[in-house]
Amino acid sequence: MAHTNHRILLADRPSGIPGPEHFQADGEPARAPGPGEILVATRYISIDPAMRSWIGAGPSYVRQVGIGEPMRAGGIAQVLESRATGFAPGDWVQGRTGWQSHPTLRGDQAQKLDLSIGSVEDWAGPLGTSALTAYFGLRDVGSLRPGDTLLISGAAGGVGQVAAQIGQIEACRVIGIAGGSEKCQYLRDTLRLDAVIDYKAEPDLQAAIHRTCPEGVDVYFDNVGGETLDAALTALRLGARVVSCGRISQAGVTEPYGVRNLGTLGGKRVRMQGFLVFDYHDRYPEARAWLAHHVRAGRLRQRLHIVEGLENAPRALAMLFNGGNNGKLVIGLEVQV
Amino acid sequence: MAHTNHRILLADRPSGIPGPEHFQADGEPARAPGPGEILVATRYISIDPAMRSWIGAGPSYVRQVGIGEPMRAGGIAQVLESRATGFAPGDWVQGRTGWQSHPTLRGDQAQKLDLSIGSVEDWAGPLGTSALTAYFGLRDVGSLRPGDTLLISGAAGGVGQVAAQIGQIEACRVIGIAGGSEKCQYLRDTLRLDAVIDYKAEPDLQAAIHRTCPEGVDVYFDNVGGETLDAALTALRLGARVVSCGRISQAGVTEPYGVRNLGTLGGKRVRMQGFLVFDYHDRYPEARAWLAHHVRAGRLRQRLHIVEGLENAPRALAMLFNGGNNGKLVIGLEVQV
Repeated sequence: MAHTNHRILLADRPSGIPGPEHFQADGEPARAPGPGEILVATRYISIDPAMRSWIGAGPSYVRQVGIGEPMRAGGIAQVLESRATGFAPGDWVQGRTGWQSHPTLRGDQAQKLDLSIGSVEDWAGPLGTSALTAYFGLRDVGSLRPGDTLLISGAAGGVGQVAAQIGQIEACRVIGIAGGSEKCQYLRDTLRLDAVIDYKAEPDLQAAIHRTCPEGVDVYFDNVGGETLDAALTALRLGARVVSCGRISQAGVTEPYGVRNLGTLGGKRVRMQGFLVFDYHDRYPEARAWLAHHVRAGRLRQRLHIVEGLENAPRALAMLFNGGNNGKLVIGLEVQV
Repeated sequence: MAHTNHRILLADRPSGIPGPEHFQADGEPARAPGPGEILVATRYISIDPAMRSWIGAGPSYVRQVGIGEPMRAGGIAQVLESRATGFAPGDWVQGRTGWQSHPTLRGDQAQKLDLSIGSVEDWAGPLGTSALTAYFGLRDVGSLRPGDTLLISGAAGGVGQVAAQIGQIEACRVIGIAGGSEKCQYLRDTLRLDAVIDYKAEPDLQAAIHRTCPEGVDVYFDNVGGETLDAALTALRLGARVVSCGRISQAGVTEPYGVRNLGTLGGKRVRMQGFLVFDYHDRYPEARAWLAHHVRAGRLRQRLHIVEGLENAPRALAMLFNGGNNGKLVIGLEVQV
């Protein structure tokens, strides 16, 4: 059966927040796999803050997506045709599908999902890249220890909510910062964090951090940057670690926020460190075994925020930057096998 | 013989740069040592940027010096009378003399100098605390590796010049930032750094860093903070380390500089870490053995900037913050034995 590969291409580089005006849709006949390739039908596409840096005009840690190219993205897909060893029609894989419904991928760049450790949805959620980011960020970069006070910004987001639950599993006191009552209610009532700060309702974020962390913060897991980072820096304890995971508050701003409270790094012997999850690629199996174990035990979940329809991917990307998502944001596609 | 203990007391907390107006001198009869104590005659007193935080109104990592108390300082002194085991008249010691000519110290808080590894002046210089700061900052916090490009701000200061030479000994490419032609000439012609940036003569510091470090910076040893840090952040390489040793540019400013370029921490996987040399106290012997070895071999020196006379200590302290010192700043006292 002939499939159409629906694609969404980068049409223009955003200077601010990316949205539908920077993309255009097209379709082409799906390409039959060549030797070593697989043709897949995409089921879920991950929408992540890092995408902003792949398409903006500024420097990025990876090659920029070219104008006219399909938007780069990680996805989960089912194999339709295979000419690659180890893949058969019906297999589920993850790989760089991009914003495409029926891409042809190189087999050596796709990974077969091990459905014995989790469902397809688990692989899109708490076994996926954002969960791995939380795992390595907290355990390796943050050197999280039992009893630590763990403060997380963007706590209702894809990475943040997994970080919060890892903190709970590791016997930490966990405080989440999020925007809006719905997200805060989820963190408070469903995930049962020790305290939650609604930065949109809070007149003085710094005071709220000090109030909820009266003995100070051991690990600050930062998904936000900017003012939130500056406020958190004032509450750090001796030997604290700041995990610089993201700074979504600074995406597309013309004038970056100036962080004033770095003086605490010296007096408090603070380690502040950035990282990319891809650096830990060799240890993904270890992390997935740990995450899957706790998912099975009911101690770890990741709420997926599914936006249905490839055509809505540009709009979904914009949601990330105005706080519109409730949980890990993915595009859901009807699989046409 | 009866000695007078000349003292300089903290009289007022500076809100900006400390100077003579914040101190007052007095004198009292030197106190004969009680059991476990020694009476000493101070020879050198170290003047350090950290002193600002010990006397200001802001938070400090140690107890604030009280109004009316002698100013706290580390010094090198000769024993006049001893009632402490292990100390005899004529011995040289280091300890917390404060700004006092003839203090009485607890023997368990003083350390006898081992003159077999260096002279009294070596102990005031390249075996002293500022040299230890450079050693642990570069080797432990900075994880300096042979071949690294090492950028140092405040490179002509007490810590900076030792850091520069440690970098040379460790086969690094060393670039120093300092203010004024005299300091830069010292770094270029005497210490023979690979490149020197005179920030006072340079219209665009960031461009100068990129020009002198065309392949980027592996370790940035930061004594300065503020704008210099912001400029250096733009030149970091993948996996770079920022050693947050000091931020003398921010001492006593009303409105701290806002650092805008922290975004590089994520994309470049940068580790930025503060520290205090006192945390490494147990490893001082290791560091001193290393430093003394290279001092003896003629590979390591520390230029002392000696201001003679205890009464000039407040003025000397102010020099630190306006860049008036050329090298490690100490007060020299005539020893009256």
